[in-house]
Amino acid sequence: MTTAADAPLSPPHSAATETLADLSEGAVLARIFPRLPTASAQLLGPGDDAAVISAPDGRFVVTTDMMIQGPDFRLAWSSPHDLGWKAAATNLSDVAAMGARPTALVVAIAAPPSTPVSVLEGLADGLRDCCEALAPGCGVVGGDLSASDALTLVVTAFGDLEGRAPVLRSGARPGDTVALSGRLGDAGIGLELLFRLGVDSNGVPDLARANALKLTHPTEVAAQLTPVPPIASGPIAALGGATAMLDVSDGLAIDAGRIARASGVGIDFDSSCLGERIEVALGGGEDHGLLATFAPDRVLPPAFRRLGTVVAVSASNWGAITVDGVSHDQGGWDPYRGWDGAAG
Amino acid sequence: MTTAADAPLSPPHSAATETLADLSEGAVLARIFPRLPTASAQLLGPGDDAAVISAPDGRFVVTTDMMIQGPDFRLAWSSPHDLGWKAAATNLSDVAAMGARPTALVVAIAAPPSTPVSVLEGLADGLRDCCEALAPGCGVVGGDLSASDALTLVVTAFGDLEGRAPVLRSGARPGDTVALSGRLGDAGIGLELLFRLGVDSNGVPDLARANALKLTHPTEVAAQLTPVPPIASGPIAALGGATAMLDVSDGLAIDAGRIARASGVGIDFDSSCLGERIEVALGGGEDHGLLATFAPDRVLPPAFRRLGTVVAVSASNWGAITVDGVSHDQGGWDPYRGWDGAAG
Repeated sequence: MTTAADAPLSPPHSAATETLADLSEGAVLARIFPRLPTASAQLLGPGDDAAVISAPDGRFVVTTDMMIQGPDFRLAWSSPHDLGWKAAATNLSDVAAMGARPTALVVAIAAPPSTPVSVLEGLADGLRDCCEALAPGCGVVGGDLSASDALTLVVTAFGDLEGRAPVLRSGARPGDTVALSGRLGDAGIGLELLFRLGVDSNGVPDLARANALKLTHPTEVAAQLTPVPPIASGPIAALGGATAMLDVSDGLAIDAGRIARASGVGIDFDSSCLGERIEVALGGGEDHGLLATFAPDRVLPPAFRRLGTVVAVSASNWGAITVDGVSHDQGGWDPYRGWDGAAG
Repeated sequence: MTTAADAPLSPPHSAATETLADLSEGAVLARIFPRLPTASAQLLGPGDDAAVISAPDGRFVVTTDMMIQGPDFRLAWSSPHDLGWKAAATNLSDVAAMGARPTALVVAIAAPPSTPVSVLEGLADGLRDCCEALAPGCGVVGGDLSASDALTLVVTAFGDLEGRAPVLRSGARPGDTVALSGRLGDAGIGLELLFRLGVDSNGVPDLARANALKLTHPTEVAAQLTPVPPIASGPIAALGGATAMLDVSDGLAIDAGRIARASGVGIDFDSSCLGERIEVALGGGEDHGLLATFAPDRVLPPAFRRLGTVVAVSASNWGAITVDGVSHDQGGWDPYRGWDGAAG
């Protein structure tokens, strides 16, 4: 692990024009680390070969997620702050989906040497602001920097189960209530708007047009670029008896299918619970809500609303998703098929 | 976290020609995960939003390190197996440098959609073989896949301090013996040979010439491409009373300077302990040995050999490195300044 303590003394530079190539790796880290939040669980932070984190119940939850310029984001649409925020939010959501409280992150960033240092400062600020807003006490305990043609963020997040069993995808039982904390469909609409209207006449992502969209469709664009997953709902659901749970990252139908497949059941959505745009609710990706199942006699925890019911199906139909009893086909995003190679 | 459990059933393909674009992300993961070692500390492995790892003493060690095609490796020189091995080895070494026993890894990989699936299988095999050879019981508990123009590996590694205090960089005291477990200089010579002789007449990394070098200079090239850091020496040094320790990744002089700076001391190397090529021993990067300090009355643990002595210096000289009492200048690799932008 590269650490700020490795930083040699560096001469003063003009902050406005500095690039990563103007500074040493250590000096860049020395600029970033003070902007990052300290984790309450940090026993040893940046400055050595590795960090040491507290795991009070003798276990820790871990997840990792990459965001790469091109397939995962475009710099014309997302500010550095947006990217830092989203990289934290998506990982925090995976931790919360186990019923755990997020405790710490490590962050690996690769960027072209020509990148202004201010871009990395913006990423750090986004990481910090997301942790402070969604998971107070969670902080960044270490990281690594490298060079690459495509800006790349890799966040690994940790969580504390606080003595509870993790909430798996496999625990849903027929009769359970299917419920969601979070929004449905806005992020998918935001992405569709950006690809349709946030581009110039050649289809290239365009800053001015994206900014216009942020004014005309603030909810949808923000849901896509700076999601606010209901992190606190994860531990609340676990305490409230959730039998299964996951982060809705690829669309409600696909992710519900994952719970259903892992649990050996089907899930039937009640169309009256899916709003006026049912296909959008079922298909929109990157919602980052928490989808959970609860025994039928349980009162749903705060922030969760009923969407449907877990149903018994034959083994050949495990994972089946229906709406009012009618079969629903699942699509989905795949980075190797869905990316057109562009990175603007 | 993306998991193999997300994999849909996929039709059989011709294994020889398959690329990532031919398969879904889930199907690729389903091909990789069975090749990876299972961690003894794994309480919940791949297949959910996050993994759960045991941390028996209520703490865990964490480090992360990126390897990116171009600044960090060339595909003409390193096989996929080599890359998987090195990505594991360098992270395991950072865990060991805290005095911890490596327990688990998570691995994020980004690759061009045109990448043969066999490349990822090779990476997985290298990760597995390195864990099995250097840190038995350590396994891969999860990961993520994405698309990128440059092959990118990001490993995050965890370790168990087994109730001990972590061995920091800051604990060296005047009079302590400076000692090393591992090799010095071979990896740096290997890299110099590859850049000088492992290229074609245009300076482009060349497979045939690299293979020839592997025959004429097997020790040096292997030290660069597939390092074998002395992972077991980390916990042994901690038990043996190491007062400070780090992984020698940027060259002995630079890394010794880090211990010296963090500890508020200087380090004087004994030239008679540095072999016949003193500048190579001091300057060669990526040795991945463990450099540690021990109180003068301690017997050095197995595999450690004396290189010098910790010396008291005035505060303005903290971090100073001398050889037989004569000042030694430190250079060093920086990804933003050292990379020429090529990625062949």
